[in-house]
Amino acid sequence: MALLVQKFGGSSVADAEKITNVARRVVASAPGNQLVVVVSAMGKTTDGLLALARQISATPDPREMDMLLSTGEQVTIALLAMALQSLGLKARSFTGPQVGMRTDHSHTQARITQIDADRVRRALDAGEIAVVAGFQGLSDQEEITTLGRGGSDLTAVALAAALKADVCEIYTDVDGVYTADPNIVPDARKLARVAYDEMLELASLGAKVLQTRSVEFAKKYGVTVHVRSTFRPDPGTLVTKEEHGMEQAVVTGVTHDRSQAKISILRVPDRPGIAARVFGAISAKNIVVDMIVQNISQDGYTDMSFTLPRGDHARAVAELGDVAREIGARGIAHDERVAKVSIVGVGMRSHSGVASTMFAALAREGINIQMISTSEIAVSCVIEDKYAELAVRTLHDAFDVARGVTR
Amino acid sequence: MALLVQKFGGSSVADAEKITNVARRVVASAPGNQLVVVVSAMGKTTDGLLALARQISATPDPREMDMLLSTGEQVTIALLAMALQSLGLKARSFTGPQVGMRTDHSHTQARITQIDADRVRRALDAGEIAVVAGFQGLSDQEEITTLGRGGSDLTAVALAAALKADVCEIYTDVDGVYTADPNIVPDARKLARVAYDEMLELASLGAKVLQTRSVEFAKKYGVTVHVRSTFRPDPGTLVTKEEHGMEQAVVTGVTHDRSQAKISILRVPDRPGIAARVFGAISAKNIVVDMIVQNISQDGYTDMSFTLPRGDHARAVAELGDVAREIGARGIAHDERVAKVSIVGVGMRSHSGVASTMFAALAREGINIQMISTSEIAVSCVIEDKYAELAVRTLHDAFDVARGVTR
Repeated sequence: MALLVQKFGGSSVADAEKITNVARRVVASAPGNQLVVVVSAMGKTTDGLLALARQISATPDPREMDMLLSTGEQVTIALLAMALQSLGLKARSFTGPQVGMRTDHSHTQARITQIDADRVRRALDAGEIAVVAGFQGLSDQEEITTLGRGGSDLTAVALAAALKADVCEIYTDVDGVYTADPNIVPDARKLARVAYDEMLELASLGAKVLQTRSVEFAKKYGVTVHVRSTFRPDPGTLVTKEEHGMEQAVVTGVTHDRSQAKISILRVPDRPGIAARVFGAISAKNIVVDMIVQNISQDGYTDMSFTLPRGDHARAVAELGDVAREIGARGIAHDERVAKVSIVGVGMRSHSGVASTMFAALAREGINIQMISTSEIAVSCVIEDKYAELAVRTLHDAFDVARGVTR
Repeated sequence: MALLVQKFGGSSVADAEKITNVARRVVASAPGNQLVVVVSAMGKTTDGLLALARQISATPDPREMDMLLSTGEQVTIALLAMALQSLGLKARSFTGPQVGMRTDHSHTQARITQIDADRVRRALDAGEIAVVAGFQGLSDQEEITTLGRGGSDLTAVALAAALKADVCEIYTDVDGVYTADPNIVPDARKLARVAYDEMLELASLGAKVLQTRSVEFAKKYGVTVHVRSTFRPDPGTLVTKEEHGMEQAVVTGVTHDRSQAKISILRVPDRPGIAARVFGAISAKNIVVDMIVQNISQDGYTDMSFTLPRGDHARAVAELGDVAREIGARGIAHDERVAKVSIVGVGMRSHSGVASTMFAALAREGINIQMISTSEIAVSCVIEDKYAELAVRTLHDAFDVARGVTR
């Protein structure tokens, strides 16, 4: 008998009919398995609650936000338990606090500290399906907390780790992780398997399938995650530990992110403390910077470039005008329409020439590279936004990703 | 420094603007007082959740219903705490489980077994306003329970008892308890004070101001309840223990209930077990009978009459046809449009002739009395529905209720 954790997101449980459909889907997995089902709030519920809070207070207290938002998942678990019962199964719902999800005190973005899964285990042993509210937990002061955006993925993976589940299935509206966006690359291929590290790069580089923290958690505790479709029965993509001894494709996937802007600070005096001053000013405005590139200094000056979410571009430019003057830089240049394209693959570790192949492929299409950044298993280039789709198709072809070795 | 428990019902907190208004009302009470504020779910929230549940299951599990419904109050407490904070006060919300409201296991109609109010007391001692979810509690198996319809009144009174509050204020859309329905009796008067026993008779006889169980609880623990208007500042009606040594009006109030039907079983053989057979059949259909009258037997036969909610009339008649045949009665007579009018007053205990004054007053107006029932502090008559308003006005005049002694 296998123990499965299944997670269904908000769009899968948006109304009574969809909840009943999810119940049918769960029932199909029931024979011979123990099941824990983690769900999010119904559809736009969380947005509705946020809007109510904003009507009442411009700066609502985080503790009270958690009290408010945690009701969303609680509604879904009750309804899904009813739906499963009316299909003839034994089911019981559990809030985050009831499921023993203990967290720190960081309201609205709490971190899991411990899981006392006894109560869920008792339900499973009694032959019940445990229906668990995602996204929420309890601090050691018995306060309700929430785990931040995408927290239901984290709940599912963490429960799977605590219960030593055989697999954690993440049901979503796409049917797996692709080698590139199928809307851009017609021969993009669904990956049967992807390594944790690759998934982390793919997730943070724009493939919005799985919340990054949940992948980190899965990697840390060795939880096998299966990303698959809510609506179709065929298998999706397994996110697992890297398998050695098998031939691997050099590049597993090509991703892109078209929501970025770029700012350069020109002719910055090259002395200690300058970077801290620049990014301290940005961080103080709660702007999260993505890629940072600083080249070697010439004549005691350097250029410093970074990318950031397009929506934060205007605020950052306004802030940095003053900073540039203050530190004696020549000024700032900015472009609010850039794209980042990346190639990702654990196979890169053992292959040389991957980056130069990428640069050459882009050059052949006349695409100029504005910034370059690399990690052990990824290479990213910032280019003009209008070339984003062409670049993705070009790289997908250049590395023969569509054919990739089955791994 | 006084300790006040204040309760606001669903219509007082129906939207963000109304919640902010309630917050302002609470703020006005704050100087020099410790405050516990109990709230219900916003407006029609509970009805909406019930409708969702019915879409999913015809017979939803009571445990899951409680899991579902308890979210309604949780939303309100978070929003009200935010509203109080944005007015500059310290406030903290608590769910029923967090407030130590322990109950038995009777889901959807749990009974309070104990209150561990330490956490609320700590909040009050820290200068915080405690905002508490009404209607909900926790069983000793750590299951969320709810207290049934009107349960927020009960939460407020029970907390007032546990905290030894000076008063429990029930804010509502009427401004107190009247000697009769002001829509029917123009000179009906707001009562400054009413005894627990009177309020119980008034509540169960149709004045829908306070949930009956909460009045019983208040009587048992000596909690002073103040029924007053959410929208107007003037004092309402105090529900307190009976005060002796003061001159009392004979009749405190005249109530009526026009939602009743009447069934008589004719020429019933007068032998043991017959009443049990009749009312057992009714009870098995979950029909709650109100008044029962059985007269003395003549020739070994008697007539048996009772009143019941009009909506259950047809089902009851269908059921009793068979029962009447089976027990050898002549048949049944029924009338689905009757009204019950009652006079209530603790002063009746020491006055004779009250009932006969009532009957004479009705007779003068040509109103025929179909059934009579009495308690220590009330007399009720069932009459034709069309005479209900006339009867109430007549009795209000006959006992000079409008002038009543201030008590």
